[in-house]
Amino acid sequence: MNQKESPVTIEDVAKRAGVSRATAGRVIGNYGKTSMAVKEKVMNAVKELNYSPNAMARSLRSKKTNTIAIVVDRISNHFFVKVIEAIEKEAFDKSYSVIICNTHEDVRNEITQLKSLRSRRVDAIILAPAYTKDQKIREKNIDAYESDIPIVFIDYEPDEIKADSITSDNYGGGYKATEYLIGLGHRNIGVLTTDKFFTEKERVSGYLDALKNNNIEFQSTWLIQADAHEFGQSSHAVKELLMLNNDITAVLVVNNGLCAGTIIGIQEFGKKIPEDISLIVWDDSEITELMNITTIAQFPEFIGKVAVHRAIELVNDKSKAEEEVKKNLSIELRVRKSCKKI
Amino acid sequence: MNQKESPVTIEDVAKRAGVSRATAGRVIGNYGKTSMAVKEKVMNAVKELNYSPNAMARSLRSKKTNTIAIVVDRISNHFFVKVIEAIEKEAFDKSYSVIICNTHEDVRNEITQLKSLRSRRVDAIILAPAYTKDQKIREKNIDAYESDIPIVFIDYEPDEIKADSITSDNYGGGYKATEYLIGLGHRNIGVLTTDKFFTEKERVSGYLDALKNNNIEFQSTWLIQADAHEFGQSSHAVKELLMLNNDITAVLVVNNGLCAGTIIGIQEFGKKIPEDISLIVWDDSEITELMNITTIAQFPEFIGKVAVHRAIELVNDKSKAEEEVKKNLSIELRVRKSCKKI
Repeated sequence: MNQKESPVTIEDVAKRAGVSRATAGRVIGNYGKTSMAVKEKVMNAVKELNYSPNAMARSLRSKKTNTIAIVVDRISNHFFVKVIEAIEKEAFDKSYSVIICNTHEDVRNEITQLKSLRSRRVDAIILAPAYTKDQKIREKNIDAYESDIPIVFIDYEPDEIKADSITSDNYGGGYKATEYLIGLGHRNIGVLTTDKFFTEKERVSGYLDALKNNNIEFQSTWLIQADAHEFGQSSHAVKELLMLNNDITAVLVVNNGLCAGTIIGIQEFGKKIPEDISLIVWDDSEITELMNITTIAQFPEFIGKVAVHRAIELVNDKSKAEEEVKKNLSIELRVRKSCKKI
Repeated sequence: MNQKESPVTIEDVAKRAGVSRATAGRVIGNYGKTSMAVKEKVMNAVKELNYSPNAMARSLRSKKTNTIAIVVDRISNHFFVKVIEAIEKEAFDKSYSVIICNTHEDVRNEITQLKSLRSRRVDAIILAPAYTKDQKIREKNIDAYESDIPIVFIDYEPDEIKADSITSDNYGGGYKATEYLIGLGHRNIGVLTTDKFFTEKERVSGYLDALKNNNIEFQSTWLIQADAHEFGQSSHAVKELLMLNNDITAVLVVNNGLCAGTIIGIQEFGKKIPEDISLIVWDDSEITELMNITTIAQFPEFIGKVAVHRAIELVNDKSKAEEEVKKNLSIELRVRKSCKKI
């Protein structure tokens, strides 16, 4: 039936059967869930087109390589570096090796990387996804996310596609930090965030609810957004916060990338930590240890470990994918010397 | 002639011809340099054993994948993160994608990773090698380093094997930092280093020569070694330095991993920077900007760019490997506020 010169591809089969490439892949590869009706349609298309799966691709795919890929949005974030090292440690203990791909916070890179990992002989992928304003882009490129290679999300709970996710209790952390400041007598508490990440939105929700439950009316000038990749941006943002609100006595920073710039900004504004401004930042780092800053600490070691366990479980038993796993790991307030009772 | 059940491998050919696997690979793959005599020996062995190269492996290898692998000894080092991001940027501009492998400063991991990259469809490898006390281990595993995939070393000039290398002028940086301190009137200058890296040995050589050329006699108690991965270690090391030499007025730190601990140690010893102790550290970072520390800055962007250019040159023209490239890139003294004239 096939009139074309070039070999029949799985896309041709999918088109003929009227299903997505991913679905055709599931039927032909005999993994995942599909209805009998769909199976029949795909297998008919296979026969009609005289399709034979590419031998090399099949051989690559059926062969376990004991490799996990980590696809991360930015390796210059020290939190992700700790998660990556934890994943590598755990993977090594389980005789898996690891390759890392960096998407530079660009969802198009993420999609390209995921697609190319199919041919790069990995058994599973752990994905810290890139931020995107286009909520539909992952759905539109569902092939990249629903191949025969299992994906475990970290630091993000996808709404748009069905997938496992391992996150920290971001909401709880925002709540705990704010309540700690309120307990020290603070009522006018600013918050610095980027306008991007899922995790930060959760943290800010926790902050807002803690204010509300303590009868403090949130002022819109208390929340300032900044870019996390330039000192100048975050130091400018905190100065704007202090300029707009001369009664602010505490600042919560919900993105670790804003930490250094915030400290510089507060100093440049002529204020002292903690005498004038109490400060809590997200994630422990060399800077927070060095400068004795109170933090909300996540447990990157634990996140990495849990993600690897789930990934290997999915590699060893594809049927496990049917029960979706969402884990929300605990966080910790680490009190140092950057907050003052008032 | 082959009596075995299993297929003849390139190792069998190499053994029969009495050459290394790498040499057999070069002859069969028709790349690199080999003498006519060796070629004949290998081709005779091929005929005698009725060897045919694995079709899949050959197809994988002959097919350009536009992928570069970076194998790095520790991604938690912020200098390497900057180099990696520079490599990715340059590779992206040249339509290459990048995968990253982390060896955790273990040369055995490095060898395993390099070997497995052969089957992982990469065109070239940029390697920041792991430290090893066993100078012979790379020679013993020369196969990992001399495959048909070109390798460009960064941050290391290998003696033990023939390879391209891109490094900073580590000797010159050590010399420049020390001469700057001498120019400010310092004569008793301590130095903190780990006992590991090639780069640090060069930096310390520069320090020693600058002392010598300024008629300052080096005291053995001025050099203290510490581990770079624990705050406690480096803060202990600087306290030891100050305890052993109460006339020290300046400290040069030649490993960025020792920076935070050194600052803490000086503070804990009850000394102030720069009033009591002038401080210069290697590599710019958030901490050096935040704390106004004078640094010797390398140019990670440039290192990444040069490494990618060379790697792609080797991918496109294997004969270019015949001229070995050693580049020694310039460094810069960035004066901030951590050094005082005495």
